[in-house]
Amino acid sequence: MVVSLRIPSLSSLFSPSISRRPPALLRRRHHHIRTPVCSASFSGQSTVYKTNDRVDTPTQKNNRVVDRAVTPRSQDFNAWYLDVIEQAELADYGPVRGTMVIRPYGYAIWEAIQDYLNVKFKETGHSNMYFPQFIPYSFIEKEASHVEGFSPELAVVTIGGGKELEEKLVVRPTSETIVNHMFTQWIHSYRDLPLMVNQWANVTRWEMRTKPFVRTLEFLWQEGHTAHATSEEAEKEAIQMIDVYTKFAYEETAIPVIAGRKSKIETFAGAVRTYTIEAMMGDRKALQAGTSHNLGQNFSRAFGTQFTDESGQRQNVWQTSWAVSTRFVGGIIMTHGDDTGLMLPPKIAPIQVVITPIWKKDDDREGVLNAASSVKEALQTADIRVKLDDSDQRTPGWKFNFWEMKGVPLRIELGPRDVSSQTVVICKRDVPGKQGKVFGISMEPSVLKAYVKDKLDEIQSSLLEKAKSFRDSNIVDVSSYDELKVAISQGKWARGPWSASDKDELKVKEETGATIRCFPFEQPQGIKTCLMTGNRAEEVAIFANGISINSYNAMFFPCNVSSYVCDSFLHTSALITESIPVKQLLRRST
Amino acid sequence: MVVSLRIPSLSSLFSPSISRRPPALLRRRHHHIRTPVCSASFSGQSTVYKTNDRVDTPTQKNNRVVDRAVTPRSQDFNAWYLDVIEQAELADYGPVRGTMVIRPYGYAIWEAIQDYLNVKFKETGHSNMYFPQFIPYSFIEKEASHVEGFSPELAVVTIGGGKELEEKLVVRPTSETIVNHMFTQWIHSYRDLPLMVNQWANVTRWEMRTKPFVRTLEFLWQEGHTAHATSEEAEKEAIQMIDVYTKFAYEETAIPVIAGRKSKIETFAGAVRTYTIEAMMGDRKALQAGTSHNLGQNFSRAFGTQFTDESGQRQNVWQTSWAVSTRFVGGIIMTHGDDTGLMLPPKIAPIQVVITPIWKKDDDREGVLNAASSVKEALQTADIRVKLDDSDQRTPGWKFNFWEMKGVPLRIELGPRDVSSQTVVICKRDVPGKQGKVFGISMEPSVLKAYVKDKLDEIQSSLLEKAKSFRDSNIVDVSSYDELKVAISQGKWARGPWSASDKDELKVKEETGATIRCFPFEQPQGIKTCLMTGNRAEEVAIFANGISINSYNAMFFPCNVSSYVCDSFLHTSALITESIPVKQLLRRST
Repeated sequence: MVVSLRIPSLSSLFSPSISRRPPALLRRRHHHIRTPVCSASFSGQSTVYKTNDRVDTPTQKNNRVVDRAVTPRSQDFNAWYLDVIEQAELADYGPVRGTMVIRPYGYAIWEAIQDYLNVKFKETGHSNMYFPQFIPYSFIEKEASHVEGFSPELAVVTIGGGKELEEKLVVRPTSETIVNHMFTQWIHSYRDLPLMVNQWANVTRWEMRTKPFVRTLEFLWQEGHTAHATSEEAEKEAIQMIDVYTKFAYEETAIPVIAGRKSKIETFAGAVRTYTIEAMMGDRKALQAGTSHNLGQNFSRAFGTQFTDESGQRQNVWQTSWAVSTRFVGGIIMTHGDDTGLMLPPKIAPIQVVITPIWKKDDDREGVLNAASSVKEALQTADIRVKLDDSDQRTPGWKFNFWEMKGVPLRIELGPRDVSSQTVVICKRDVPGKQGKVFGISMEPSVLKAYVKDKLDEIQSSLLEKAKSFRDSNIVDVSSYDELKVAISQGKWARGPWSASDKDELKVKEETGATIRCFPFEQPQGIKTCLMTGNRAEEVAIFANGISINSYNAMFFPCNVSSYVCDSFLHTSALITESIPVKQLLRRST
Repeated sequence: MVVSLRIPSLSSLFSPSISRRPPALLRRRHHHIRTPVCSASFSGQSTVYKTNDRVDTPTQKNNRVVDRAVTPRSQDFNAWYLDVIEQAELADYGPVRGTMVIRPYGYAIWEAIQDYLNVKFKETGHSNMYFPQFIPYSFIEKEASHVEGFSPELAVVTIGGGKELEEKLVVRPTSETIVNHMFTQWIHSYRDLPLMVNQWANVTRWEMRTKPFVRTLEFLWQEGHTAHATSEEAEKEAIQMIDVYTKFAYEETAIPVIAGRKSKIETFAGAVRTYTIEAMMGDRKALQAGTSHNLGQNFSRAFGTQFTDESGQRQNVWQTSWAVSTRFVGGIIMTHGDDTGLMLPPKIAPIQVVITPIWKKDDDREGVLNAASSVKEALQTADIRVKLDDSDQRTPGWKFNFWEMKGVPLRIELGPRDVSSQTVVICKRDVPGKQGKVFGISMEPSVLKAYVKDKLDEIQSSLLEKAKSFRDSNIVDVSSYDELKVAISQGKWARGPWSASDKDELKVKEETGATIRCFPFEQPQGIKTCLMTGNRAEEVAIFANGISINSYNAMFFPCNVSSYVCDSFLHTSALITESIPVKQLLRRST
């Protein structure tokens, strides 16, 4: 069954009475049994159990830990990931298999990503625009000699206006075809170049194995597309954009990605070169977090995207494309989260500081709430994103757990005694327990603002440092294939000199599951010997298990570029370059 | 044929030689013949002629007026509109019939709309989120007893992953069904309310008659969806959001919309009440520029969207939805543009000031350009969006025309004599010729910044005033049906007391083409007599020809709400409220 509908939430099987706790919660408290909650829906099963995570009584006090607990990360990384997404209200499952509803808290993280990148894209000379999402099927066919090969990835509109369409429409999986179709109409002379655009859009890929944020049937992304007069300019642009992504990853998301070049096999095969940023998740899997392709003239040859140069000659343009997607949100969750739940880097946290007022006697309530409001206002004037959780419905303890699970970097506690002393207690999310707690910070606005800003910066740096040392302690330098195999079997990344063949690379994949994530830009000095062949090697490569090919790009490529795997069975036409799914090629070549 | 591909641009039928001017341009210069350029593609014909509007020689000096001219608005409003969109590079035609590529200059206007509204939505307590665009066909079927009736508006995905889907998927035409499906899972108790969300998204409607920005197969919009515990709250929200739209229209886009309530016939029939903002275009047609619906409990009854109230009872939530779309860009073009082209209100203009340096002798070039750069930098520090057109390729005269056609509110001219006197010349786009030109404005940054800001404010106000007096001089107060008919036949809007039946309203439509645009919020005092029946009337209504039903909402409605047209042939079920396309209902009822 393709479309799986949710069954009503479990809680509705019971009376709406507030005193009954849904059984899933009881089960979850002990972290013994994993229900098929999320993975079920995302792997195509039609039965989805959902817990009602609110206990509907304001008087029930001992509810704090129970109804928001997540599976400890240390126990089951995947279950933890799905729990965090559910409990922190980042996303939910859409009614159609593999689709995701991005909830406000999750969407706010995406907005922070957009806000930063949008500024950078414009600073580097790009304009936003919008291309239609329906692409004539013939555009795709023109590009592929074996449509069947990648049609498994496509959603196809066959009915429009109540009628069978004469030509089927593909719901965009990426926009290279339609972009080039339009570029041919806008680019006439060298004075129309460079043409540098970007769009924020939804894209659709009929993925069979899906996972919220990491791989969904529909996802949100930005896709940059540029055309240049020279090869050098295109190369510069591709490098510039992977640099933008790298800086973003480090400075905003505290993810110490490794930037580098993809191997020939892993390159978007329509590209001359693919640059990538590779991130190590908490389970040490690699995540391809963004890519930037130097497309050379491959697409312009295929689509006839030409310009008249200064001497009056017609030339093919040189192109790039580059993208990051909502997958980045998954990367943030999996890099920084811990057993307690989400942990957000301050710069992209929708809420940077949560204020939890504490009172027992009703007499204290007003004083505490007034002080808490003043603190909130003071912080807001310093552009700190702050939330005052003044609800009567929950105990302070429940609130502590809830906002920790939601990954808010700083908590300010404030009770009657603090009001008397005009101080607050500040707790850092990244340092659990008493160690992360500082008492007696003055409420005086200028002092408090400076202190909070300082702490947020500290957390931002600390998350990056922690992720860096985790990453570095899990990358093993290897000098032989045996060493590589040991490292990979331990779940680590293997870094070693590589100049072996594509066939050898595929053999590594077959035997260990690991692929070359990249040839990192940062290379060790000195003479190197290929770990596989013993021949001289120019570069080290990093091998790891992980997630890549976010990009449909990577699934097919104009054949005349490609080479080793497709020469044997593809042909090119004069105008349109044939293409073929890389997956199929890999099947054929392995 | 459903998918119409462009033929290659006319210019490609000639040699790429730069000295030949494409014949369409010659033709256009005299404004005699209208080619089927744009309307053709958008009305489904497969042949699209496109002019190459760049003349590829830097040495050709007398090219200024010719290659960017648009059909005068006064001559042919529709041709003018399409010319402006093409020549000002606001949008282009996608390869699929009725789709539109929003080009950077047009998209920047949409971004200005987004930037403003996004802040207002958040200030009023809404969070952004994202719902999937694929909706199970069964969701739509549940809502409609006569699917065929509105299926003409739907694009349907029947193939995914290379296989025929078991359940077809609708590409969202609007999100009420999926929103309610999700709301039932998130709303449990009164403490979960109000739930107030918004999404910026693309939507698809298989329109047969399309027009760039105004009605396209795929368009961009925001759709707000809220759920409340009481009817009063929902009403307050619906009013609040139409107020947000109204303020936006007046203050940002200088469009003096008339806000009011839709008649029963024009109401989104799933709603208790629909509020609208109606704008008068330059051809005096009415444009429905935004709507806000109080949905009452109609959707919550249909979808079982319930909450437990404070006394433990289950209740249906009260809902609203509200939207504005890229149609607003069309409204801006058609409100302010003139024979010369686009005219943009400064607040939403991507470029507020264009600086045109003028030099004849090469010796003067550097001095002029340096001064122009200083002026640019000065204005930028005052957050003025400024462009320096320092290209060598075009004459100053060509640049004047080009940026006027693009609707830039202010032009600064600057030549060698200005450099000597440290002054500039400033020209207002909204006052043609010498009258709009002021000489000798000091270049001194603080003086110039203040002057420019003041002028931009002046233009913003002046555009609003001009549009207001145009609007008011084209609304006729009528007290009889005969007067109404005269007013409508003159292309004007008719305003008169109305308390007649729906049947009478439909008769007006049939006989004059005009519909009730709204019962405006601003009502005259005193006793009123219905223009049609002579009975007592509580309100005046405004009748006009124009464009409405942007909203799919309006196309079907749960029957138990509806009334007069559907009672006769629809039935309701206990759980799911039947619905039916309003178009079909209108057909049946007229």
